[in-house]
Amino acid sequence: MNFAVIGGDMRQAKLAELLTEDGHRVNVFAVDKLKVEKVIRREKLSEAIADADCVILPLPATSSEGVINTPFSGTKLTARQVFSEVLPGQTVCAGRVDAGLRELAAQAGAKLYDYFAREELNVANAASTAEGAVQIIMEETPKTLSGAKCLVIGYGRIGKFLAHKLWAMGAKVTVAARKYSDFAWITALGYEREHSEKLDGKLSGYDAVINTVPARILDESRLKQLSKGCLCLDLASKPGGIDFQAASRLGVHAVWALSLPGEVAPESAGLCIRDTIYNILLEKEVE
Amino acid sequence: MNFAVIGGDMRQAKLAELLTEDGHRVNVFAVDKLKVEKVIRREKLSEAIADADCVILPLPATSSEGVINTPFSGTKLTARQVFSEVLPGQTVCAGRVDAGLRELAAQAGAKLYDYFAREELNVANAASTAEGAVQIIMEETPKTLSGAKCLVIGYGRIGKFLAHKLWAMGAKVTVAARKYSDFAWITALGYEREHSEKLDGKLSGYDAVINTVPARILDESRLKQLSKGCLCLDLASKPGGIDFQAASRLGVHAVWALSLPGEVAPESAGLCIRDTIYNILLEKEVE
Amino acid sequence: MNFAVIGGDMRQAKLAELLTEDGHRVNVFAVDKLKVEKVIRREKLSEAIADADCVILPLPATSSEGVINTPFSGTKLTARQVFSEVLPGQTVCAGRVDAGLRELAAQAGAKLYDYFAREELNVANAASTAEGAVQIIMEETPKTLSGAKCLVIGYGRIGKFLAHKLWAMGAKVTVAARKYSDFAWITALGYEREHSEKLDGKLSGYDAVINTVPARILDESRLKQLSKGCLCLDLASKPGGIDFQAASRLGVHAVWALSLPGEVAPESAGLCIRDTIYNILLEKEVE
Amino acid sequence: MNFAVIGGDMRQAKLAELLTEDGHRVNVFAVDKLKVEKVIRREKLSEAIADADCVILPLPATSSEGVINTPFSGTKLTARQVFSEVLPGQTVCAGRVDAGLRELAAQAGAKLYDYFAREELNVANAASTAEGAVQIIMEETPKTLSGAKCLVIGYGRIGKFLAHKLWAMGAKVTVAARKYSDFAWITALGYEREHSEKLDGKLSGYDAVINTVPARILDESRLKQLSKGCLCLDLASKPGGIDFQAASRLGVHAVWALSLPGEVAPESAGLCIRDTIYNILLEKEVE
Repeated sequence: MNFAVIGGDMRQAKLAELLTEDGHRVNVFAVDKLKVEKVIRREKLSEAIADADCVILPLPATSSEGVINTPFSGTKLTARQVFSEVLPGQTVCAGRVDAGLRELAAQAGAKLYDYFAREELNVANAASTAEGAVQIIMEETPKTLSGAKCLVIGYGRIGKFLAHKLWAMGAKVTVAARKYSDFAWITALGYEREHSEKLDGKLSGYDAVINTVPARILDESRLKQLSKGCLCLDLASKPGGIDFQAASRLGVHAVWALSLPGEVAPESAGLCIRDTIYNILLEKEVE
Repeated sequence: MNFAVIGGDMRQAKLAELLTEDGHRVNVFAVDKLKVEKVIRREKLSEAIADADCVILPLPATSSEGVINTPFSGTKLTARQVFSEVLPGQTVCAGRVDAGLRELAAQAGAKLYDYFAREELNVANAASTAEGAVQIIMEETPKTLSGAKCLVIGYGRIGKFLAHKLWAMGAKVTVAARKYSDFAWITALGYEREHSEKLDGKLSGYDAVINTVPARILDESRLKQLSKGCLCLDLASKPGGIDFQAASRLGVHAVWALSLPGEVAPESAGLCIRDTIYNILLEKEVE
Repeated sequence: MNFAVIGGDMRQAKLAELLTEDGHRVNVFAVDKLKVEKVIRREKLSEAIADADCVILPLPATSSEGVINTPFSGTKLTARQVFSEVLPGQTVCAGRVDAGLRELAAQAGAKLYDYFAREELNVANAASTAEGAVQIIMEETPKTLSGAKCLVIGYGRIGKFLAHKLWAMGAKVTVAARKYSDFAWITALGYEREHSEKLDGKLSGYDAVINTVPARILDESRLKQLSKGCLCLDLASKPGGIDFQAASRLGVHAVWALSLPGEVAPESAGLCIRDTIYNILLEKEVE
Repeated sequence: MNFAVIGGDMRQAKLAELLTEDGHRVNVFAVDKLKVEKVIRREKLSEAIADADCVILPLPATSSEGVINTPFSGTKLTARQVFSEVLPGQTVCAGRVDAGLRELAAQAGAKLYDYFAREELNVANAASTAEGAVQIIMEETPKTLSGAKCLVIGYGRIGKFLAHKLWAMGAKVTVAARKYSDFAWITALGYEREHSEKLDGKLSGYDAVINTVPARILDESRLKQLSKGCLCLDLASKPGGIDFQAASRLGVHAVWALSLPGEVAPESAGLCIRDTIYNILLEKEVE
């Protein structure tokens, strides 16, 4: 098959290489400052897209409204430019698709798929995020992880992976959740549990508190309850779960880590995007 | 509170004791051959039920159509008898409620809750089942689990716990699943993966194959592909996932393990039933 | 090479099969009630031994003073009979060699090696013993292992494996040891620790206490301190670490498990004996 | 008790704080740029040492021949100066004691103990080093650790901890060792194994190779065999196990990480030094 990989970062570069290794022909465009091996670099957008069975846009597809995310290129590229080259019926896979992109695709008659909306990519990203969190805890605390008391707030995908990895490293893990069935999982896996709505008075004694829930759980009054030296790590997307201004006032060591998968493991992220795109193409065929 | 625990096995006995330890008054009936401490044994059903805030029937509630499950009692007790004593508005918690029971409860004007339908109990049971499976694999194979090659078919609740526990014991774990997102979990946790619909030709080399899917996956042709000495363990409820007649003909070492939680860890099961009943009562209050 | 496997149990049978699978010629004798595949069964001891590059005696080699351990044979076989057939310079590998055997070997001019004295076999046996202990705890307690509080007394080979496996299964693990360096290992792996000489007053609250130390640690006064229902498992060889008479008087649930490797995983044990014998033969060559 | 903590880094600072928290009186000297709470800062060496029951020198005690290791002080301090203040019979604990220090102590009639020579500290340091290695692998590779193929060379203290932690994080672990008994441990814990003297031809396919053996194992010819992108991490002290010049020539991503415990977990290191000093003092009493 022919692929066109347009814009993006190291994840896209790895993706392009992996597609080539699988025997596909891969055009790349707008990644001029990235080292990508064995692919065909195109000078013109039209050449990159023309014969592509699948056009791949980055994650996120756009860095700002209507502008393709091309951090490793000097060229500014608009979504409009891209879709003006896309042929009716052509397949486009993009990450975190917004309404503008969706409209442009409709106008061009393209088949647009959001690979970031796929559960398998979110699971893989959660695993990467959890690993990245372990790395940050190691980097930001002056203690070993074995024996450290860690509180993971939230038991979604990231919470599940993170609790597992912290436990595996020898930490004492407590998970705060709300659902009875989550408590059953937490207990059966040997962790301690708290109710995430009843954390007041139970926040001291931890070496690290990690939030995964997109709600302002760690407000000033709760931050005050943390033990001295406790790391407070936020993995939730905006607006985040920690009151960082209060943390700063209180001298709480707080870290907000966003977009970890692309940062800590871009190659694995590229590989997961490839797998997800294959899944999309496979399902498309079956239709 | 006042509880009436009617019938059941060791799980119900433990449940009754735990309720007592929590400060409740507990009447028991139709468990005469079981040792239960600190409870009030009632000779008459009516006395047991009369002042109960909550009547608890066993898991499963009925052993056959209309007959309460009382394996540790000489007395035969029908569901009709029980509900003839239940007062309008009284709360009854029962496990695996069938249509007959539901109708009797409606006629009596009782509030009937099926604790076995609750997700938290199913999760806890899955954990127990997975532990029981590990125990059976240890008992039924002449090899150590560390280093053993194990295939877990299905990645539902039981599959998740079982894969984790086998990996934790040092086994080489492969999980067969179907959903892309399950593959993402499986890979991220470090297991190998197979597609459960493409197992043909990939079944040899295992020391143990454990089925958790209620579908006839291990039919004669697949059983033939297993390595000599491979244990074939079925955890799926009826009709089960293994063709046991074929297994017998082929000399495959096949074991069908049902109702493990009550067998391998009745005390833990009793504790989980208690927690689930508390959750039911708590939610009822909130209403 | 030619091997003669004389007497023994399922471990020896597996050993003989594995040797055959490796391309060796294997004579077996005095295992007539065991199924052993692909080997040459000899009717006469002399025929079995005559052309053997290595004669293998069981583990333990003798069941009583001077009598070869042949539980799966009707024939009584003395060590003297065996060594009367052994040629000067012939290699004999035996398990748990006693003084009598050593003298007979010396008289016969045979090279006698005790494979049970080898560290690698002891490590493998410790791993098997630890697995067997996990199995027994599962079988003998009515609770799940995840969440169970377990005390492992002793941090030798068995203690190391057992603590690891219990932790891996989700138990809360405390290890009692004496050496400062053992405490460092225990802490770094995330377990709790106790001093094995200061256990008084610290024995309650456990679901299982497992002794691996060959000293009477669990005497009557300490058994009295155990929580009701606590399983007390002894893995130490004679005289053992539990006062079983006191346990019986006190109603403590006590189990003494000896020779677990041969019982719970005879095939793995056979494989380890093979590896150990290969190591012996390899080292002999190097000399 | 009265302690004098002379020189050192964050580990010594933490140690001083912990001693204070335990109720001891602690003088510190030559750590003027470090924040240390609740201790008595002394301007004069003599005041710091005068009434100390135990004088604690850093790890390593000397940064160069005869000069005390005081990285957080403007003052240069010689070992001779320190021991000129030490009274006959006074106890001095120092890390990595050299011959010069030993002689000065002898002349002063002091009782000198090397806490770095204690097994319990070495075990704790090995655990910290292994954690630090996990952190570095995460930082230096663009892949997730789960699913990564890792080769650990050497199965001493660091190798044991590192293999365990990598496995726990979901990596595929191979350990290279030499002793048969090490192979038994490696196999029983579920890792793959290689012979560390027969690595030629078996070095490709790894995402990370970590050396813990103080011997030039990864020379040019072996470095050539590594897969592209493989991280090559050396944890061995000088002269190290990797030919870094060759690695540089070949474009191999090689990292030499020394003194990890003090860097990645200084607080834990301080705590372990405290425990070790307590052990020394306790044993001294018993004498």
